Amino acid sequence: MTKIAPLYLEDLHVGQRFTSGTHQLDAAQIKAFAAQFDPQTFHLDEEAAKTSFFGGLAASGWHTAAISMRLFVEAMPIAGGNVGAGGEITWPLPTRPGDVLHVECEVLEIKPSQSRPTRGMVTMRNQTFNPQGEIVQLMVAKMVVHRRPQSPAAG
Amino acid sequence: MTKIAPLYLEDLHVGQRFTSGTHQLDAAQIKAFAAQFDPQTFHLDEEAAKTSFFGGLAASGWHTAAISMRLFVEAMPIAGGNVGAGGEITWPLPTRPGDVLHVECEVLEIKPSQSRPTRGMVTMRNQTFNPQGEIVQLMVAKMVVHRRPQSPAAG
Repeated sequence: MTKIAPLYLEDLHVGQRFTSGTHQLDAAQIKAFAAQFDPQTFHLDEEAAKTSFFGGLAASGWHTAAISMRLFVEAMPIAGGNVGAGGEITWPLPTRPGDVLHVECEVLEIKPSQSRPTRGMVTMRNQTFNPQGEIVQLMVAKMVVHRRPQSPAAG
Repeated sequence: MTKIAPLYLEDLHVGQRFTSGTHQLDAAQIKAFAAQFDPQTFHLDEEAAKTSFFGGLAASGWHTAAISMRLFVEAMPIAGGNVGAGGEITWPLPTRPGDVLHVECEVLEIKPSQSRPTRGMVTMRNQTFNPQGEIVQLMVAKMVVHRRPQSPAAG
């Protein structure tokens, strides 16, 4: 991943892709997040997790989502900030201690706003992968993106 | 909120509602989460946030989601664990320092599995409210819920 300058609506096109850096999960991170936000045994205790739905310690889906956000913000910085309006999220597989995660993003749609000429809505498909190349999270997200400000001379 | 026993598929019906306890957000929590998962200035710095999209310090949407998960798990514990397959999430309004949040949940649909007779898929509408009664997060989520095990005598 190369560091890129913050992006305006004019910098984006449908089909454009961004690949994030990586984040390595471990059991301590999984348990710390779970203790605060999702205190269920399969996120907190290796032994108890073995007989659970997940068959072993697994991260909260919201932990995977939070890590994916970090990777996304770094890979595709939007001028003025990455502001999501929401979207659809699925977790086809759990994430595990030791997983090195990365995110691949693709611009699906760009809709300039009719009512607010300085911005538009961009739909992204952000996929989070584990080291086996399996998708552990799919997020189709809508994001507010601003147009590049006109310079006074150009006005 | 009264503490309830873990729920099986048979314990649920369409229209059933659950109300969570509360969680009070503060600036320190907002910044700590953002530093780890969503390091953008409007989540990290009160002064810089004033001129941002949010007009002041606001929590990451993923922070609101994580807090909402905690409140949901405590309000509606599912036997074997609250395992989400995914869903649609939107953040109509940001959450702010001082906000006392709570979650109201409603069972929208119950679909017994055709292929796996021991479980079903339950669709929930989970709304997170701020103290003004405004919805700050709407999540329509699908969740795996198990049937109550048959006792050997009944088999």
